Amino acid sequence: MSHAPLRFGLIGTGRIGQVHAASIAADPDAQLSWVADPFVDGARRVAATFGGTATDTPDEVFASGEVDAILIASPTPTHVDLIAQAVDAGIPVLCEKPIDLDIARVEALRPRIASAGVPVALGFNRRFDPAFASARARVAAGEIGALEQLTIISRDPSAPPADYVAVSGGIFRDMTIHDFDMARFFLPEIVEVSASGSTTFDAGAAQHGDFDTAITTLRAASGALVTIVNSRHSAVGYDQRIEAFGGTGMLQVANAPTSLVSLSNASAVEAKPPYELFFLERYAAAYAAELHEFIRLARGEESTSPTFEDGRAALILADAAQRSATERVVVPVDLA
Amino acid sequence: MSHAPLRFGLIGTGRIGQVHAASIAADPDAQLSWVADPFVDGARRVAATFGGTATDTPDEVFASGEVDAILIASPTPTHVDLIAQAVDAGIPVLCEKPIDLDIARVEALRPRIASAGVPVALGFNRRFDPAFASARARVAAGEIGALEQLTIISRDPSAPPADYVAVSGGIFRDMTIHDFDMARFFLPEIVEVSASGSTTFDAGAAQHGDFDTAITTLRAASGALVTIVNSRHSAVGYDQRIEAFGGTGMLQVANAPTSLVSLSNASAVEAKPPYELFFLERYAAAYAAELHEFIRLARGEESTSPTFEDGRAALILADAAQRSATERVVVPVDLA
Amino acid sequence: MSHAPLRFGLIGTGRIGQVHAASIAADPDAQLSWVADPFVDGARRVAATFGGTATDTPDEVFASGEVDAILIASPTPTHVDLIAQAVDAGIPVLCEKPIDLDIARVEALRPRIASAGVPVALGFNRRFDPAFASARARVAAGEIGALEQLTIISRDPSAPPADYVAVSGGIFRDMTIHDFDMARFFLPEIVEVSASGSTTFDAGAAQHGDFDTAITTLRAASGALVTIVNSRHSAVGYDQRIEAFGGTGMLQVANAPTSLVSLSNASAVEAKPPYELFFLERYAAAYAAELHEFIRLARGEESTSPTFEDGRAALILADAAQRSATERVVVPVDLA
Amino acid sequence: MSHAPLRFGLIGTGRIGQVHAASIAADPDAQLSWVADPFVDGARRVAATFGGTATDTPDEVFASGEVDAILIASPTPTHVDLIAQAVDAGIPVLCEKPIDLDIARVEALRPRIASAGVPVALGFNRRFDPAFASARARVAAGEIGALEQLTIISRDPSAPPADYVAVSGGIFRDMTIHDFDMARFFLPEIVEVSASGSTTFDAGAAQHGDFDTAITTLRAASGALVTIVNSRHSAVGYDQRIEAFGGTGMLQVANAPTSLVSLSNASAVEAKPPYELFFLERYAAAYAAELHEFIRLARGEESTSPTFEDGRAALILADAAQRSATERVVVPVDLA
Repeated sequence: MSHAPLRFGLIGTGRIGQVHAASIAADPDAQLSWVADPFVDGARRVAATFGGTATDTPDEVFASGEVDAILIASPTPTHVDLIAQAVDAGIPVLCEKPIDLDIARVEALRPRIASAGVPVALGFNRRFDPAFASARARVAAGEIGALEQLTIISRDPSAPPADYVAVSGGIFRDMTIHDFDMARFFLPEIVEVSASGSTTFDAGAAQHGDFDTAITTLRAASGALVTIVNSRHSAVGYDQRIEAFGGTGMLQVANAPTSLVSLSNASAVEAKPPYELFFLERYAAAYAAELHEFIRLARGEESTSPTFEDGRAALILADAAQRSATERVVVPVDLA
Repeated sequence: MSHAPLRFGLIGTGRIGQVHAASIAADPDAQLSWVADPFVDGARRVAATFGGTATDTPDEVFASGEVDAILIASPTPTHVDLIAQAVDAGIPVLCEKPIDLDIARVEALRPRIASAGVPVALGFNRRFDPAFASARARVAAGEIGALEQLTIISRDPSAPPADYVAVSGGIFRDMTIHDFDMARFFLPEIVEVSASGSTTFDAGAAQHGDFDTAITTLRAASGALVTIVNSRHSAVGYDQRIEAFGGTGMLQVANAPTSLVSLSNASAVEAKPPYELFFLERYAAAYAAELHEFIRLARGEESTSPTFEDGRAALILADAAQRSATERVVVPVDLA
Repeated sequence: MSHAPLRFGLIGTGRIGQVHAASIAADPDAQLSWVADPFVDGARRVAATFGGTATDTPDEVFASGEVDAILIASPTPTHVDLIAQAVDAGIPVLCEKPIDLDIARVEALRPRIASAGVPVALGFNRRFDPAFASARARVAAGEIGALEQLTIISRDPSAPPADYVAVSGGIFRDMTIHDFDMARFFLPEIVEVSASGSTTFDAGAAQHGDFDTAITTLRAASGALVTIVNSRHSAVGYDQRIEAFGGTGMLQVANAPTSLVSLSNASAVEAKPPYELFFLERYAAAYAAELHEFIRLARGEESTSPTFEDGRAALILADAAQRSATERVVVPVDLA
Repeated sequence: MSHAPLRFGLIGTGRIGQVHAASIAADPDAQLSWVADPFVDGARRVAATFGGTATDTPDEVFASGEVDAILIASPTPTHVDLIAQAVDAGIPVLCEKPIDLDIARVEALRPRIASAGVPVALGFNRRFDPAFASARARVAAGEIGALEQLTIISRDPSAPPADYVAVSGGIFRDMTIHDFDMARFFLPEIVEVSASGSTTFDAGAAQHGDFDTAITTLRAASGALVTIVNSRHSAVGYDQRIEAFGGTGMLQVANAPTSLVSLSNASAVEAKPPYELFFLERYAAAYAAELHEFIRLARGEESTSPTFEDGRAALILADAAQRSATERVVVPVDLA
C-alpha cells in the first residue's frame, strides 16, 4: 500500500524526545514536521538534525495543520492536557509513559478518549523488544502450556539524582510501571497486588521517602502469579530478564550480551563483559518498532500498540503497589 | 585426631532413611549400629546392607547403650517425642525437617533442648550443597557487597499424591520450608513475611485446600528482600536456583546439568538434557556433607550444622506464609 | 575535523555491491556519486535508492572526475584491471576479495601498486566485526599471554550452486580465504600450510573436483599453530567462531545469538534458535565499519584497513592449501 | 546373574594403580586379591587400604592361582611382557595405555594374542566418560546425520617434568594417544595422518626434542576429517572438549564445570571457576565404568572394552603423527 509519510509533531526534545526524533527520521513511513519545546534551542537542534519546524509551544504545532500525529515526550505533568488537546483536534497521539502520576486526572480524561475514537497509544516500548515480543508470542502459541508464573527482573544501572526521585512519583510509578505493563503484556487481567519496598543504599530515596529496592507480586485472574524484582542500581549493568513458566515448559529472556567474546583464565572461565549501559542501548530496536506500530494505529490499520487503557492499568497497579508497600496490606484491584 | 567411628541409631527406613544409612556406611567416621522401623522388614533390609542391628522400636535403640547419635528419619509426627527422648538420654540427634507441623509442640520442646545442652541438628541438607554453600561463603566474604536481594527458585518435578498433600501441612510447611531455611542461611534475621498462593494445576492441592504455586517475599532486618518462587511441578525437571544480588555484584547458582553434551541443529542450538530428576540426585553430595558436619557437632567440634532453632525459625516462617497467603495479610515475625 | 563527504564510484551492483551502496549512503562521511554495472538496470536501481549517477561502464566513472574513491564489487576476473585503472588515476580503491584467482596476475600488479602510493584496501570485512576485532585487540594487549593456538571454525549455511563452484577457484580461494586473512589478523607471519580436503555431501563440489569440507593448519613464524575448520554447509546456520589460546588464558568468540529467548521443556533445556542466516546479517556492522575505516585510509588518516599485501598473502596461503590438499604435501610459504 | 567377585591381581601401585585399586574395591563384582610392585611398600599400602596380598613381583601374582584377572598399571616398558605372561596363563588382562612405545614389539605380540583367545583390554578410559559416551551413542543413533568433522580439544593443565618428557615417547605417543583412540571411538577406520608440532613454552620439551603444542588432522575412510588440538599446558585448567559435526546437526561436549556458581560484577558477568584440576577428577566416573566393563569382558559377556587392537591402532597413529610432524609429510596409514 502506498502512503504519504505520516507527518509528526514532536513535543519535548529531551533525551527520549531525541530518540523518537531519530526514529521518525529513520522510518520511511514517517517524517518530522514540527518540533516543540519551551526550551526552543532544543527544538531547533532537533529540527536541524531530523527535519521539521521548531517552535516553543505545542499550540503552534496543533495550529499548523501540518501534523498527522502527535508524539508527546514532554514532562509527565503536561501529558494529560496534551493528550486531550490532540484528541479534541482528532489527531492520533503517542504519549510517553506515564499518562500522569495522579490516577484521578487519568480517570477524568478516560471518557473523553473513549468517546472521541481518536487513537491514543502509550510508550511502553518494551513490548516491542524482539526478545520479549517473541517470548510472549511463543507463550500465546502454547509452547509452554498454561502460563503459571512470570518472573520479571528489572534493575537500573544506577539510582537517579535525588531531585529526580523527588518528583518521580516513587519507584512503582516511575520504574516498575514498565514492569506492570510487561506483566499485563503476558497476563492482562491482574486482580491483586502485593508489594514490599526497602531503602538500603540510595540516599536520594531515603531523603524523599522512596524505596530503592522493591519486590511486587501480582495475581492474574487465571491464578497465575507474577513476581517483579526491582532495584535502582545494578553493578553488572542494566538487568532486564523475564522467565515465563508454564505447565509444559519455560521461556527465558536473557540479558543482551554486549560482546560475543568471553575470557577464560586461571581466575575464572567464560567471563563476559557487563551488560548494556541502559535503556537507550538495550531497547534501541524497540523504540523503532514502537513508532512503526503506532504509525499503523494512526492509519487505522491493525496494530498492537498499547493504548490509553494500558497506561491507565499500569498506573492503577503502581498506585496499588505503593499503597501495599507503605501500608503493608494486600490490595485487590479492578482494571475494568 | 583419631576417633572411634560414631555409632548411629537410625530411626525410620523410608526413602530418606535409606539415604542416611548409605551416608553413614560411606563415612569412615560413622557406623550404623541400630536401625529401627515399625515396619521391621525395612529395618532388616537396611541393616543387612549397611550394618547394625534391626528392631521394630526406637526404645530398643535407646536401651541398647550402643548408639552415640540418633538420626531421626521417621514420619513427622514422631519427631518431637524422639528428639525429647534423645535429649533426655543425652544423645546428640540429627532430625529430618520439619520438627513438627504444630509450632506449639515445637515451642513446648524448646526450653528442654536449651537446658539439656545436647546437640540437636536439623536436616536442612541444602545448606551443604557445594554450590549454595559456596555462594553463601562468597557473599559472606564480601564478593558482592551488601546483600540486597535474594531470589530463590524452587520447583519440584511433579506434584505429590493427593493423600500426601492431605497430611503435608501445606506447601509452605512441606516444601517452602527448605527455602525458608535457605533464605535464613543467607539472611538469618527475617522480620516479615508476605505470601501469595494459587492452585492452578494440581487436583490434589485443590481437593485439600492447598496451593500448588506460591510466591513468598521475606524482609530481613537489614532491609534485604527475599523472593521465593515455588511450584509443585516443573516440566524441565527439578528446578533449584538462587540469585544473590548485592551492592557490587551478583552470584548465581544454576541448575546442575545432567550432561555436558549439547545438541544444535536446524530447530534449536545448544539444547541440553533436562535437569536432575529430584532431590536424591541433586543433593547427593549435600546429604553426605550434612552427615559429616553433624558428626563434628556430636563430637563437640566446631560445626555449621543447622540447629533446632533453625528448624523452629523455618516453621514460624511457614506458618506466617500460610497465614499471609490465606488471609491476604502481611505478617510480621519475631524469630528470637 | 570537517571534510566534504568522500564521493564513491561503485562498480558492481550484485548482492555485495548493494551492501556497500547502503553503507555509503548511511555513512555521513561518504556519498554515492557513480554506480556502474554492465547490467545497467542494476546500476540504475542502486542509484535510485542510494544516490549517484548510473552507467554501464566503469570507464565513465573514471572519466567523470566526480569520484574520490572507487569501490570494486564486480566479478573477481575484473578486479586486477580495475585496481590498476584506479591506481593509475590516483584514486584510492577498496576492492572486494579476492584480488584474483591467479597469483601471477596479482604479483604482476604488485610493483605498480607499491610505486604508485595510492591506497588500495581489500574487503576482508571480518576484521571489522566487533567481536573478532575485540578478541584481537585483547590478545594484542596481552590478556592471554603469548598466542599459541588459534582455532577458527567457519562453516557456511549451505553449499553454493554447482555452477558457482565451477568458477569459484575452489573452497580455499573462495571460502577459506576469509579465514586465512583472519589468521593473519592475529598472526601476520605465516610460514607453512598443511591442508586436508574431503568431498562428502556436495554434488557440485564432487562434479568440479572441489572439496566441501576442509581442515587447514598454519604455522606462524612465532611457532603458534592455527587450525581452520571449514564446511560448505551447516545445519545449525552460519557458524563463525574463534578461539585464541595463549599462555595465560583463552579468548573465545561465540556465534551471534539470533534471540535472547531460550526454551526449556521436558525434552531439552536452554535451547536457543539457530544462528544468523548468513554473512549479510552476521557481518552487517562489519561492512559499515570496513567502509568507514577505508574512508580514513583514502583521506590519508591513520587506518587499519587491510591492504593489497593482505589480499596477496591470503591468496598465497589459499594456493598453498590447495596444493597441500591435492598433492598431500606440507607447503612452506614466504609472504614477504 | 550371580557371580563370585572377579579376583584382581594389580601390577603397579603408582598414581593410576591406586585409582584402579579404589575402583576394584568399590565395585561389588570385583575384589583385590594380589598387589605387586617392586617398590613393595607401595604394594603393601594399597593392599592395606583396598585388600589383597602384597608382593614385590608379578610372578608371585601369577603363581598364586588366586587371580581371575590382571590389571597392568606398571611402567610402559613392562606392558608387553606382562600381557604376554597373562595371555599365556589364560588370564584376562586390562592394561594401561600405551601397550608399548615400540610398534615392533606390539606387532610381535599381536599374533600371540589373536591365537590365545584371552581377552586383552586397553585402558582408554575416556571412552567411558558419560559425556563422550553419550555423544558417540547419539552420533551412532543418527542424531546429527553423517559425521563429517570431529574436533577434539585436549589440553593438560601443565607440562610434565623434563625427565618424564625424556622417556615419554613424545607428545603424540604419550598424550595424543588418548585423542587418537577418541577419534577412533567415533571413526574407527583412519586412513591418513597429518600433524604439526611446535615448541613454544616448555623447556623440557625443547631439551628433549619434543613438542609442547600439536595439531593433528586425521582422515577417516568415510571422508570425515578429525582435528586434534593439543597443548601441554592450559591456564584455564584441564581442557577436554569434543565437537561432532554432522550433516543435520552438531553435538558438543563441554568442559565439566567445577561449580554451579557464577559471578557477575562491574568487570565481567557470568564468570565461573576454572575447570577440573586433571584427569583423576575429570574422569573419575570413567575409571569406574572402564573397570566394570572389563569385568564383563573377562566374564565372557558382551562388552565394549577397547581391545589390544585399539591399543595397536592408537600407537600406529601416534607413530604416523610423529613422523608427519618431524618430516613434514602426510602419512597414509593402514590399521587392518
